This record gives sequence, structure tokens and C-alpha cells, in this order.
Amino acid sequence: MRCAVGIDIGGTSIQAGIVNEAGRLIAQSSIRTLARERSGDEIAAAILEQIRAFGAAVPSHSCEAIGIGCPGIIDPEKGTLIFAGNIPLSGFPLRDYFSGQRGIPVHLCNDADAAALAEVRIGAGKGARSAVMLTLGTGIGSSLILGGRIYTGFNGQGCEFGHTVIHAGGELCSCGRRGCMEVYCAAPALRRRTREMIEHCPDSILAKMVRKEGKIGGRTAFDAADAGCPYARRLIAAYIEDCAEGIANVINGLFPEMVILGGGVSRQGESFRAETERLCHEKCLHPQGLAKTRVVLAALGTKAGMIGAGLHALDRESAKL
Amino acid sequence: MRCAVGIDIGGTSIQAGIVNEAGRLIAQSSIRTLARERSGDEIAAAILEQIRAFGAAVPSHSCEAIGIGCPGIIDPEKGTLIFAGNIPLSGFPLRDYFSGQRGIPVHLCNDADAAALAEVRIGAGKGARSAVMLTLGTGIGSSLILGGRIYTGFNGQGCEFGHTVIHAGGELCSCGRRGCMEVYCAAPALRRRTREMIEHCPDSILAKMVRKEGKIGGRTAFDAADAGCPYARRLIAAYIEDCAEGIANVINGLFPEMVILGGGVSRQGESFRAETERLCHEKCLHPQGLAKTRVVLAALGTKAGMIGAGLHALDRESAKL
Repeated sequence: MRCAVGIDIGGTSIQAGIVNEAGRLIAQSSIRTLARERSGDEIAAAILEQIRAFGAAVPSHSCEAIGIGCPGIIDPEKGTLIFAGNIPLSGFPLRDYFSGQRGIPVHLCNDADAAALAEVRIGAGKGARSAVMLTLGTGIGSSLILGGRIYTGFNGQGCEFGHTVIHAGGELCSCGRRGCMEVYCAAPALRRRTREMIEHCPDSILAKMVRKEGKIGGRTAFDAADAGCPYARRLIAAYIEDCAEGIANVINGLFPEMVILGGGVSRQGESFRAETERLCHEKCLHPQGLAKTRVVLAALGTKAGMIGAGLHALDRESAKL
Repeated sequence: MRCAVGIDIGGTSIQAGIVNEAGRLIAQSSIRTLARERSGDEIAAAILEQIRAFGAAVPSHSCEAIGIGCPGIIDPEKGTLIFAGNIPLSGFPLRDYFSGQRGIPVHLCNDADAAALAEVRIGAGKGARSAVMLTLGTGIGSSLILGGRIYTGFNGQGCEFGHTVIHAGGELCSCGRRGCMEVYCAAPALRRRTREMIEHCPDSILAKMVRKEGKIGGRTAFDAADAGCPYARRLIAAYIEDCAEGIANVINGLFPEMVILGGGVSRQGESFRAETERLCHEKCLHPQGLAKTRVVLAALGTKAGMIGAGLHALDRESAKL
């Protein structure tokens, strides 16, 4: 069976593995990125070592390509990262470096796109003809998979549904606009809402929980709501309402077969998913007789990026034939 | 050269023509729909007559298919309209009727999608790898053309960017949600804003213009702004700001190569286009070094639907080969 190396470069760790065309991991390892301590050259050299180690462990599999999932924005012509956020790889010639060292083709893609591809091929979105994955984490990652392939937009930027405005003139977003979905629905928004709420109800279960834990986490409000706190319940209801507003925009905008929710917030599980889907169906234009877009939770966890990067590389090699 | 019949069924008129694969109209005619006076059968029979008349006029062109652009939502399996708005064709077996009568394949598509396809093939979006067309009329029609083909979504509904919320909790939309782009950016919104404004400034140029014309049109505020009315200018600025908010959402969501603006409002011309594009570029995530999405005005006018319906039919026949 055809194989590729899949690499997922994250701010904290770098996951690499050998992925076959069925999306199975034949070998895998994880190293720390040490993004602050290392230069781009040192990170690339560490990844090279990580890949070389597979050669001894899995000699029978000759990989035909390398797929790299990277944060930020890729220059598909040059095979570099235009902007890589906190990792010192902006401008680093990732494609040329790895293809030069390993002698096989290298294909870059966005890390969120890689994860979405894996979810659609073998995870929560298996078989969907079209799917949007939204990763509710520190920010909101978003990816569109059409006909089993990553949609990249005309300039390689893919899609950024986190930076679509749901509250025009609202809270300031890191992108410079006011009222983006990201400011209301990413994990920091949940912490901000929790902080604001406990100022108004210092004797609530929610406030006591925060004092006991000594910090506000993304899950605190969910836990307090589960414990029966009416303030936390109100907060969670308002939060899910905003999420549904943003997700319903994605649905009305594209009518994908599925919306896949990933990231920390989505780990709240079935009750979060079911309520979000219910509100979306209420908000969306779904005429009678036509199937509705399903809202599902990501299933592959942190391995999705590495698997998807490998699958993407195999796709690109197939496209050459 | 290959040819197809292209039909655009509108609430007021039905345009039909013979379109070649270069998008040129070889013959064309227009009849009144008389949607209130006629039944679905009578409308279909009138269209059949309209097509038959081409047979005498253009005998050398044998059309290989018929393309029909219809308002509302299509059932692609059955070849019928699920919902056709004001035209009594909901549930009418359009595909079977015309293929039975003419003996050639019939392909239905949404009328806005047909117009967008024509704009991308031979009009304002010529050559764009990806384009979203937004028609700012009584409502907001929207279509996505990817790789030169109509995007239909998994259930045939296409896309409805007019029903994406920019002001969560805002004005009530006909779709049942609050704050949709359509409530702020379609032509009735411009008339509503004008009506509200003249109550606050009865002595303004805008108010005088309305009194002189005896009615509020979609262009009244634009005309008053051009005549130097500061109230009208403020109104137009707020209107374009909302349009740009919605369009910037489309751009950040998909990074299409072009956004094509059609419909009555877009006929305001270059100053409207330029200001909308400027605001969109200000709002959107366009990293340095990457090309920006262009905002352009539709070029084909009312013939776009008929041409696009014919081109779509030829596309579908090619796909069979």
C-alpha cells in the first residue's frame, strides 16, 4: 500500500508519522518544538532526525512523498511559510529543504486543513462530499473539504470563518475587525465571559468553583453549569447561541454536508453538539424534503493533522499521474 | 460549434435563447411570465412555443440540450422545483416535460447560479478560478462558481450568503433569523433607510427629492448624495459599510478570486464598487505578498441567466462523455 510521511508542526510539539493511503499510522513519534529556544534551521534539522528514525523502524515501507501541515499561511509557489505565528519558520524553505534531504516530493498544507482532511477521510466526517471543520481553540481554525480535497481559495489562504463578523461593530478582534465569530466563540471568549459573570455573582457555584480552582479555564463554566449553577447555565446558553450564529452562517453560506467541530471547547461532548446542531437547524434555510447539514464532533484528536498531512501528500502525488 | 437552449424563468419575463459553447447568443426571445394569470402547465406550454420558434429561425443549429435557470430551490433528483416563490411551478416536472417534448436532455439550475456562471465564463469574472456573485436586488441572491462550475452544496441548495447574520439579534429577516445581510443590504433596506432618514431631516435635499419624485426608490439616496445632500451621504456611507461587512465575510470565508456584484443597487457604478472594495480590503485578512480578492460589477445584465443556463447544460453534457 502507498505510504507518505505526515508531519504536523505545532507551537508545542511536532508530530510525525508514516501514513498509508487508508489513513493508518504505521509509525509515529512526537518531539517538542521548543519554538522559543530554537531557530528555524534547528527545528527543521530536528524534524529530519525524527523522520530518519522511521527508516530503521519501518524499513519495508518506502514513502513516496512528505506532507507537512503548518500553522499560518503558506506560499504554495515557493513552498515556504509566509507567516508562521509563534514558530520561527516564516520564510524558511521547508519544501526545498526536505525534498533535498530526502529525495522525495514535499507538499505543504495548512495544519487545520490537514486535520479536516483526515476527519473527512477516516474520522467524524467520513464520506462527506463537503464539510467545513471549525476548530474552537485559542482562535478559530476553519477548513473546507470539497469532494475529498482541501479547498485552498485562489491565493492559498483557504478559508477563515473565524474572521466573519456576527456582531457588526462589536468586540475588537485580533484581525482588526469588530465582532468576528472568533471574539465570541474561541476559548478565550469563554474565559472572558466567565470572568465577567463572576463579578456579577460572587456567591454562585461558578464563582466558588473559580476560587477553588484558582483559575478560569475553558471548561469551568461548563462544569459549573453541569453542577446546577443558573449563572453558568445562562452563560453557556449565550455562548452556544453565538457559536450557532456563526455556524449557521457557514451552513447558509455553503450548505456543506457536515460541520465538524474540533478543538478544546468541542470536547464538551454530546450535549454541546446536540444543542449547537438544534440551534443551527432552527436558524438555517433548510427546506422541507432536503437533507439538513449535520453538526458532528471531531473524532481523531491530535493525530488528525499528521494523518491528514500524509494523505494530502499522497493526493498530490496521485494528481500528477 | 456545440449549442444548447438556455431558458431563464423570471417572475416577470421568460428569456430564452440558443447559446453556443463560447457563450454567444445565436437567437433569443422574451415572453411575459404572467405568473398570476397562468397555471404551471400554461407557462410550460408557452416556453415550449418560444423554443419551437427558434427551430424555424435557426435551422442549422441542432441543440444538444436544454438548460433552465429557475428561481427557488431545485430537486436535482426529480428535475422539479421544490419551491418556486411567486411562479406557479413548484412541483412541476420541468425536466421530464421538456425532455419529453423536445427529445434532448434537460438540466435545471438556479437562476442566480446560471447568471454567475455566465459572468465567470464571458462576463465580469472572466477566467476567475473562483468567484462569488451577490445580486443585490429585492433580496440577495448568491452563487459560488469554482473551477468554472456551479457549486450546489450537498443538497442542491447552493449558497445563501444573503442569509448570513452580520448584526446578531438585529432586524428580523424574512427567513426568520435576525440580522441577516439581506435585511441591511438588499434594495428594500435602502428604501427603509431612506424613509427613516427623511423623518429626521424633512428639509434636506433627500427629503425634497422624495417629495418631488412622489416615491422612494433604491436610487433616491444615491442621487441625493450625488447632489450634495449630507444626510444622504451619511445614509449611503452606512449602507456601503454594511454591504462591505457582509462581502468581507464572504471573502474571509472563502477567499474567492472575485466577488461579482449584480442587481439594481450595483448599477450605481464605479464609485459604489470602488468604495465597497476599499472597505472590504480594509476588513479582510489579506497578508502581504498574496493577491487580494477583487470586487467587480456584473457585466452581462439580464441576459446572464439565459446564457448561463445554456452553458450549464453544455457542461453537464460534457461531463457525461
